[in-house]
Amino acid sequence: MRKIFTPQYPVYISSFAAVGGYEERRGPLGELFDLASDDDRFGERTWERAEGEMGRVCLNLAMKKADISPADIDLLLAGDLQNQCVATSGGLLTFGIPFIGLYGACSTLTEGLCTAAAYLSADSTLSRCAVVTSSHNCAAERQFRTPLEYGAQRTPSAQWTATAAGAFILGRYGRACIRGSLPGVMTDGYVRDGANMGAAMAPAALDTILRYFSLSGKRPSDFDLIVTGDLGAVGSEILCEMLGERLPGAERIHADCGLLLYDRDGRDFHSGGSGCGCSASVLAAKILPEICRGELHDVLFLSTGALMSPSSVQQGQNIIGIAHAVHISAV
Amino acid sequence: MRKIFTPQYPVYISSFAAVGGYEERRGPLGELFDLASDDDRFGERTWERAEGEMGRVCLNLAMKKADISPADIDLLLAGDLQNQCVATSGGLLTFGIPFIGLYGACSTLTEGLCTAAAYLSADSTLSRCAVVTSSHNCAAERQFRTPLEYGAQRTPSAQWTATAAGAFILGRYGRACIRGSLPGVMTDGYVRDGANMGAAMAPAALDTILRYFSLSGKRPSDFDLIVTGDLGAVGSEILCEMLGERLPGAERIHADCGLLLYDRDGRDFHSGGSGCGCSASVLAAKILPEICRGELHDVLFLSTGALMSPSSVQQGQNIIGIAHAVHISAV
Repeated sequence: MRKIFTPQYPVYISSFAAVGGYEERRGPLGELFDLASDDDRFGERTWERAEGEMGRVCLNLAMKKADISPADIDLLLAGDLQNQCVATSGGLLTFGIPFIGLYGACSTLTEGLCTAAAYLSADSTLSRCAVVTSSHNCAAERQFRTPLEYGAQRTPSAQWTATAAGAFILGRYGRACIRGSLPGVMTDGYVRDGANMGAAMAPAALDTILRYFSLSGKRPSDFDLIVTGDLGAVGSEILCEMLGERLPGAERIHADCGLLLYDRDGRDFHSGGSGCGCSASVLAAKILPEICRGELHDVLFLSTGALMSPSSVQQGQNIIGIAHAVHISAV
Repeated sequence: MRKIFTPQYPVYISSFAAVGGYEERRGPLGELFDLASDDDRFGERTWERAEGEMGRVCLNLAMKKADISPADIDLLLAGDLQNQCVATSGGLLTFGIPFIGLYGACSTLTEGLCTAAAYLSADSTLSRCAVVTSSHNCAAERQFRTPLEYGAQRTPSAQWTATAAGAFILGRYGRACIRGSLPGVMTDGYVRDGANMGAAMAPAALDTILRYFSLSGKRPSDFDLIVTGDLGAVGSEILCEMLGERLPGAERIHADCGLLLYDRDGRDFHSGGSGCGCSASVLAAKILPEICRGELHDVLFLSTGALMSPSSVQQGQNIIGIAHAVHISAV
């Protein structure tokens, strides 16, 4: 979109929930999750199905908080990292809600928030849209890299796919309002190292942030926080260095969900968290509650995605970054 | 959506293009394609990258027909069948258009048309959205089933993934108008046979068609055609039998893109065509030109998708069907 998309009917985030696994519960945000599984299995036999179940439980919790049933939701927008997004289709099937499937890698959350806001803005008779995204560390490791049982060593720039999900119900009332959104442009940072996705995504985050401020006429001082999805330590350092040159002040209000989710000291998380569930769970567990309590007023939230597959990397295609921005403010 | 989504600002399909491979050129619609590759490679070294190139060429052709450049398009919605949709990201990167990635298996085309219409309806200042979907037989076979070199035998209910792409530019003028759309609900037909996806998708197509007629108050006689995406011979027979009981008359105006794309006599296409590129190329090569020439007035068009992966089937998950409907009419 060549301009900021501003909903013509107000769109609010009415309800939200965060679900996580064992490591997420042990992290700095552990107490803030609505539910966590101690064995990361959520009662299922496989990691892949556990992820679907996690998404199902998460949407149920968000609906419960809003005191609504699936029949009250007009449209469901959701996605995950598994091939053909089967965690989403398997987990969310039983709700029976009309469904738009998304794939934006780890950027799927804000892709969904942008698109849900567009649907709600397009038709004033729609009541609610739900957005759900999830990721599972063990499912992602064996799909994208190696099965956990191999015990493969990971490089310091590698990130830890979060076992987490976030569910969001957008509607006509709430204490957090979507003021505007800006879909991202695919950006090639010429990175081919699947163990350094922060570096691949940082140029996309920079591009969307610069476009947002240029198009909106706003300044960094108009925001309390600029939150990226999962650049991790490596990607955040790259972004902040570039932001400091191009949009001074922005780097001082930057936070990254991948750095907020885990305590990295002496642990195996390396550059930080990642995955569709990373930015979703941090938004639902930490950022939105702070907005609803009035502790944060204006947040520019960007989930960041690395568009790649093992095949595309093997065939010499660069890892393409993308970042979609949503401006969320307290009401 | 619990009701038909009707754009509040008129949304038109302004321009479109279809690109195919060798078998598609030899088929009954061969002469209608804008471009076809004789070796299915589109100048690339791998099938996967050939699919991306096919999508790129197709969007270029659609833009050329409308005499516009990428800068004239506000938003690109696209997807494919490859893991993590890398054909789309690799092929469409260079356009630099803000991008929303979709995954709806073979239903991605009408998922994109629904969502593009919502964006255009949400904001009257947007000029154009583009929708692109593609599939490649050789890339799909080795990803979902076995590499072609194995020469695996296929069952009669199996379908032939089309090597094809379609690109559509939606805007504020044109000779084909999107009157309304209805996102599909995920439907479980309790099918686990990946070689019988028509049977898995037919219940989803039935559900969306019945909901469309129930919600709109229209009758089958209000339409010239009800077109499904890729049910093939097996799925179409199931659908028409159920339609005959539940919505008499509808089965007589049914057509299926999977049956239109190939001449199945004595050939290896078995139940018919499938893939994201099947319904997209048939819509662009045959249906839309007939609408623009006034030969068809009202068409209910439903791309149909089978939400599954090799892993989900191996882990005992049913193949979930989905079908999104778009009502396209001549202006």
